[in-house]
Amino acid sequence: MTAAPAGSPGSPVTSPVQLLERHRATLDHALEAIRSREYWSPHPEHPKAYGEGGSLSAGQGKEAFDALRGRRFEVEGQPGTDGWAATEASPYGIAMGIEYPHPDIYALLPAMRLAMPAWREAGPETRAAVCLEILARISARTHEFAHAVMHTSGQAFMMAFQAGGPHAQDRGMEAVAYAYVEQVRTPDTAEWSKPQGKRDPINLTKHFTAVGRGISLLVGCNTFPTWNGYPGFFASLATGNPVLVKPHPRAVLPLALTVRIAREVLREAGFDPNLVALAAEQEGEGIARELAMRSEIRLIDYTGSSAFGDWLEANAPQAQVFTEKSGVNTVVIDSTGDYQGMLGNLAFSLSLYSGQMCTTPQNLLLPRGGIETDEGDKSYDEVVDDLAAAVGKLLGDDARANALLGAIVNPQVGERIDAAGALGEVALPSRSVDNPDFPGATVRTPVIVKLDAAKPEAESGYMTECFGPVSFAVAVDSTEDAVTLLRRTIREKGAMTVAGYTTSPDVERLIENACLDECAQLSLNLTGGVYVNQTAAFSDFHGSGGNPAANAALCDGAFVANRFRTVEVRRPA
Amino acid sequence: MTAAPAGSPGSPVTSPVQLLERHRATLDHALEAIRSREYWSPHPEHPKAYGEGGSLSAGQGKEAFDALRGRRFEVEGQPGTDGWAATEASPYGIAMGIEYPHPDIYALLPAMRLAMPAWREAGPETRAAVCLEILARISARTHEFAHAVMHTSGQAFMMAFQAGGPHAQDRGMEAVAYAYVEQVRTPDTAEWSKPQGKRDPINLTKHFTAVGRGISLLVGCNTFPTWNGYPGFFASLATGNPVLVKPHPRAVLPLALTVRIAREVLREAGFDPNLVALAAEQEGEGIARELAMRSEIRLIDYTGSSAFGDWLEANAPQAQVFTEKSGVNTVVIDSTGDYQGMLGNLAFSLSLYSGQMCTTPQNLLLPRGGIETDEGDKSYDEVVDDLAAAVGKLLGDDARANALLGAIVNPQVGERIDAAGALGEVALPSRSVDNPDFPGATVRTPVIVKLDAAKPEAESGYMTECFGPVSFAVAVDSTEDAVTLLRRTIREKGAMTVAGYTTSPDVERLIENACLDECAQLSLNLTGGVYVNQTAAFSDFHGSGGNPAANAALCDGAFVANRFRTVEVRRPA
Repeated sequence: MTAAPAGSPGSPVTSPVQLLERHRATLDHALEAIRSREYWSPHPEHPKAYGEGGSLSAGQGKEAFDALRGRRFEVEGQPGTDGWAATEASPYGIAMGIEYPHPDIYALLPAMRLAMPAWREAGPETRAAVCLEILARISARTHEFAHAVMHTSGQAFMMAFQAGGPHAQDRGMEAVAYAYVEQVRTPDTAEWSKPQGKRDPINLTKHFTAVGRGISLLVGCNTFPTWNGYPGFFASLATGNPVLVKPHPRAVLPLALTVRIAREVLREAGFDPNLVALAAEQEGEGIARELAMRSEIRLIDYTGSSAFGDWLEANAPQAQVFTEKSGVNTVVIDSTGDYQGMLGNLAFSLSLYSGQMCTTPQNLLLPRGGIETDEGDKSYDEVVDDLAAAVGKLLGDDARANALLGAIVNPQVGERIDAAGALGEVALPSRSVDNPDFPGATVRTPVIVKLDAAKPEAESGYMTECFGPVSFAVAVDSTEDAVTLLRRTIREKGAMTVAGYTTSPDVERLIENACLDECAQLSLNLTGGVYVNQTAAFSDFHGSGGNPAANAALCDGAFVANRFRTVEVRRPA
Repeated sequence: MTAAPAGSPGSPVTSPVQLLERHRATLDHALEAIRSREYWSPHPEHPKAYGEGGSLSAGQGKEAFDALRGRRFEVEGQPGTDGWAATEASPYGIAMGIEYPHPDIYALLPAMRLAMPAWREAGPETRAAVCLEILARISARTHEFAHAVMHTSGQAFMMAFQAGGPHAQDRGMEAVAYAYVEQVRTPDTAEWSKPQGKRDPINLTKHFTAVGRGISLLVGCNTFPTWNGYPGFFASLATGNPVLVKPHPRAVLPLALTVRIAREVLREAGFDPNLVALAAEQEGEGIARELAMRSEIRLIDYTGSSAFGDWLEANAPQAQVFTEKSGVNTVVIDSTGDYQGMLGNLAFSLSLYSGQMCTTPQNLLLPRGGIETDEGDKSYDEVVDDLAAAVGKLLGDDARANALLGAIVNPQVGERIDAAGALGEVALPSRSVDNPDFPGATVRTPVIVKLDAAKPEAESGYMTECFGPVSFAVAVDSTEDAVTLLRRTIREKGAMTVAGYTTSPDVERLIENACLDECAQLSLNLTGGVYVNQTAAFSDFHGSGGNPAANAALCDGAFVANRFRTVEVRRPA
């Protein structure tokens, strides 16, 4: 007998066993990385690393992206499509014109539920292998995803490539690794034998099965559709749950491509592709609200505004809800042994993607009496002026500015930039930058505003998240005063990141204790090529889950442990 | 120089290092047990195993218990006591008369918060060792706890001894093991070195610290104060959280003793004893409701009614809430190869502690056409009659009945027994049993009522939890019909346990799939000395956390993972 040829109808092109062989070593590397938290990534960061071994080259990626525009994006075999939605507008001004399927959830959700038992029976290892195959195919199309992310988020190409490609894929793989290890902590089978003194022992055979909770809803965001979407997507899928992907109406394509690839892999591996489905919506339709209250939805992953995140936490009691919301990120500047390094590092952090990151610093707390540096004492005004100059220098060249800033994602960000000047003295005004490649793009440099914490009216400025390239140089009485304000800011507003600059071990300890007490992730004395707004999968935690900015961290045991339950069946041995 | 003598003022009698040496091997055993889920326990089940090596003998335990009665129970050094509460009444009718401190929470909660930083700095291993020392001292006083549990819960002595002693201690230790392993999944320190091609790598040093969430509130229950209380108590304490213990007003003593021992160990080990505190309340005061909404309370463990459990889940959004509520436990009886074994096993399950266990079967689903057995076909009526006879025989001797049944915990249970007869035909009436040792005890045998699922009016009986020794023999059309009803019961009402009896692999699979789909723990064909209402720590999961009976299982990763968060501090290497 000969085996059926690969790809013949009904036979999986890629059997689970093949997938396990292909990906087991990668999974083991990932498991070791989350244990050691040393540097590791299987996904190259450099665009030139792609184009061979089945991956798309830069040109092929661009072609593939262009071929998607101006037409209907079919999701083969997805049941319950009752219309089409085209809601994207590239922040770079190019026409997208892509129509995505709008779901009839009364048809779609039951179809997704039906896919669960076979996915449960596949077990944690096969589920992990299928997830890693999905990631491998996404990785091969990183150049295509880069354009999709760029033209939905407004990120500059290189950032869209890296953050939307390998870094997002890393975060997805990290979630697969956590999900796997959590499920295999309990063995499939145990033989339990309890001694009974002189009598025979009692013997039971016990079987343990990880069972998914139900359909998982991913509510995507506009700025990082893949980076913020992949952890929840893969954590839920790897733990046995179907995933319904509801992208942000202005950032559908990266997640629609993800859905299509996932369904292709699932189908080939012999599983029901309806384990992953796309729910596009009309702008302003609010389908996430409707879905979140459905009894079939048992898990929700969300990145976006605190208003809707808080609503989800309060109004979807049938679901485990994982949220990343907004916060007010603080930098405490006490002193530095590398003044130029600090200024350069902060200037980059404030500029990257026009500050449109949940991790961008907003409040720079500076003692009004100035700080000690390796270049001598610097007054509050000097530090602010020098930082403004550093930002100005970094972005002085338009080409470089465009490559770093990307485009403003939506008009509200532009409005906040324009309104910032009214809050205080402007130390650095925002300027508009022309983008010769994309004349329709809105490109703005950061604005820095001086505020004084001693003035009560200043508080409404620095104690509110001002999403976008707006930061406040807040004068405080002392470093101790800064740390007190830091504590209050984390507790009341939340923080995805905290940074500190000091040469004093005592002050370091003061800032550290504040972050330990209030549960925020801290970067100290960054002066080189690592920035407070960047976290690396397998090593850094993104958010803490312990302050109001997010109720979960990417990625830890708590992010996966409650996405499945363990059912035990015991019987006499 | 000589070291200060042990026990001298200010020097810890039991240093963390000593505790680590003493308990590391036990912790390792526990870690291995939760991985293999094979039989293990460090806590002897037999009363005669105690009395040497510093543990109280039977007589000493009784004396210690009697010495507690009729007086004030001081909690040394606990701040913020604004009065005293004496609310216990032994179900066996003996006078308790113990007064416990009632807290001024405005003084107590801040004192508990202050204890957190040093406990955080102690680290996971020291916290585990301190918890295991607390458990060891509790274990040494198992005979004392047995009386305390007996005279608050109404359990018979042997059950109070085992379930309230070693089995509860096992569950506590299991939680310590899970908490420890969850915290040390992330290393204390990582050196992260990211290659930069031809340039020098970027090197960061990262420190990771498990930080508790805040004060943990334990809301104790009346029937299993230690068994249901210890998992949450130790899971929270081991993950860095102070624990405020709010016992059920009628089952204070077992948890008050626990608090006192925990404070003694904490003090000796050099920690602030206010990491554990007692909050006694007046009957009907509802202090748990007030505490649950306080911002300082970040974790809540609760066992009790669904009404208050649901309230907690909805009204304490600032806290992680772990609930074990009520459910309707089902037995599907399809066929058996050991008819007498099945009858004996079920009779015991229905009788143990007068059915006052959250795991006691309530609905026995029987095909109206009867079942096949090793003793030939048995009609529905025959099975019910034979089961009634088995219960009658098991409890025919009053001494044996008293030893198995214990006492009715409160008048509401008695009222439900009396009302059960109105729901259908009584197959086995309840009888009152005299207890010569405790004439004040209310002791009742189980009642079995016949209901027919084909009659709509029967549903209000079997689809409602009837806590206590009341079970329903529900006639159904077929085994398939039984499994359909089983699914609906789990989904709508929840279930802590499901049992099934069948000789058919197909029916086994049918019942298993129902339990996997609806997420309930299943015991198949139990005919010997293991009962569906019993679960063993380190091996069996108690509850699934995936149906309405409980939102958590004892004990798994999800039970501990969100009790702490990991804070990272990174700096250039």
